[in-house]
Amino acid sequence: MAVPIFRASIPKFHPLIHSLFATSFIDETSKKRRMLVSCAPSEPNPVRCREELSFCVGTHLIPHPRKVEKGGEDAFFVSSYNGGVIAVADGVSGWAEQNVDPSLFPKELMSNASSFVEDEEQVNNNPQILIGKAHAATSSIGSATVMVAMLERNGILKIANVGDCGLRVIREGKVYFSTSPQEHYFDCPFQLSSQAFGQTYRDAMVCSVDLMEGDTIVMGSDGLYDNVFDHEIVSTVTGYRDVADAAKALANLASSHSLDSNFDSPYSVEARARGFEAPIWKKILGMKLTGGKPDDITVVVGQVVSL
Amino acid sequence: MAVPIFRASIPKFHPLIHSLFATSFIDETSKKRRMLVSCAPSEPNPVRCREELSFCVGTHLIPHPRKVEKGGEDAFFVSSYNGGVIAVADGVSGWAEQNVDPSLFPKELMSNASSFVEDEEQVNNNPQILIGKAHAATSSIGSATVMVAMLERNGILKIANVGDCGLRVIREGKVYFSTSPQEHYFDCPFQLSSQAFGQTYRDAMVCSVDLMEGDTIVMGSDGLYDNVFDHEIVSTVTGYRDVADAAKALANLASSHSLDSNFDSPYSVEARARGFEAPIWKKILGMKLTGGKPDDITVVVGQVVSL
Repeated sequence: MAVPIFRASIPKFHPLIHSLFATSFIDETSKKRRMLVSCAPSEPNPVRCREELSFCVGTHLIPHPRKVEKGGEDAFFVSSYNGGVIAVADGVSGWAEQNVDPSLFPKELMSNASSFVEDEEQVNNNPQILIGKAHAATSSIGSATVMVAMLERNGILKIANVGDCGLRVIREGKVYFSTSPQEHYFDCPFQLSSQAFGQTYRDAMVCSVDLMEGDTIVMGSDGLYDNVFDHEIVSTVTGYRDVADAAKALANLASSHSLDSNFDSPYSVEARARGFEAPIWKKILGMKLTGGKPDDITVVVGQVVSL
Repeated sequence: MAVPIFRASIPKFHPLIHSLFATSFIDETSKKRRMLVSCAPSEPNPVRCREELSFCVGTHLIPHPRKVEKGGEDAFFVSSYNGGVIAVADGVSGWAEQNVDPSLFPKELMSNASSFVEDEEQVNNNPQILIGKAHAATSSIGSATVMVAMLERNGILKIANVGDCGLRVIREGKVYFSTSPQEHYFDCPFQLSSQAFGQTYRDAMVCSVDLMEGDTIVMGSDGLYDNVFDHEIVSTVTGYRDVADAAKALANLASSHSLDSNFDSPYSVEARARGFEAPIWKKILGMKLTGGKPDDITVVVGQVVSL
């Protein structure tokens, strides 16, 4: 059955404002897909002109509760070069077992990337090449996942990703675009490494997406995406006008969920879908595998604005 | 703890061959991310040269069980233009309530797209423009979701999407890239329409992704993605050398799951995550909302080959 709903008026280029739709319901008997019927006068969308676009960026990092003293093992950088550049690297904690500080490699990686980002001759606004050059210049021992996104003035966002950092583009209160994590198996992401067995920039997922004024970009380490569902990311960022406030709110939500053993997090949902089960004592008590995942949490929120 | 695993040798450019990794486990106590340690000699990846690339395509369509006689309401087209073009459109079934055959609009849309695809002057290998021109030329009543992907000889796959058709790029036995559905609310996708209240090509998600020889592309209507998890898509396509066999196997798996009321499908998992619950009689019996979703199922499998 076609379900008529009321569509709230949405300012076309007003970011971080939640768009509201009437509550829907699942029709168990017919399971037919529904047509959207608008009560507003029908107008074709206005032509969206390409202006000179750039990012307005806010960031927030919350270290793992046991790593607060050292600031955690995530690193990020933000640059105003061209339309704007945002990047996140997440140190692989397993290195601590070999008495290596896992934070050194991602920090050096981000520091190198920030040094090379304006190199027009060699990097030429290419995030994959930037990752390659930043990696080649590291001297620390360790490994890290990394994502770099570079906005061109014409609205093209170029993305390169190695591992399980993530990016969402939110347009008019909905996820418009999202990246997928790259992993060898559950909880073992693709990673750049000081050792030869790791991945390289050539293994990066490379894509580009057309952005427009008003879009909101959320980039984060897996500490965000393991603990916060996409619909929560959307509802959170659309509640804030300021990108720094939005980044802080998202990081706080992720942190809160990560410490909640009863929260059925994206991480626990994914673990069950992959066939992992709760420990026997929990199963005997009729409990399932749930809980957030304590981790370093980095959130970068970028709002696309015209110059 | 870092978990050493054996990495099977994977032919670099051999598609549809499953890559094998030793079974992993979830470490509930530490929940640390793991480093991948290879037992094979460590070598940087070889440089991947850009050759002239194109698609080798197989397709399979299974209509909704109640719509077999009319062939269902999905439509697709495949073209060898340039590196190859694949497209799927899915008619919105709600139109049947208004005595409109929901299959007419998507069929006309795909027919128009196939007519315009080689128009270098106006379409110029741009899938978003192709959608716009195909839509503008329709005269049928109805609405449909639509996805078009155009491969350039240099390996750039340009994608435009309106609604909840989906695309996955599988590289070396893993999901390398995936699209997200566009929807107004659960089960109500963005859709091109004969009426003014629908979306237009300007609402399309537009992105591009770098492909290489050996990549496998899976495009499908929501009948595929509502009933088959990504890990099943990967394991299924990697079991076949022939793209037509792979498309048929995926469609058959989706069909089988769609008719299984006990299968905990992606559709039912998503419904529960959105807060929908089982009918009261099921809840009294301790049952949860499960089951596949009967639907038209279209699968297009493209394998990237060098000329």
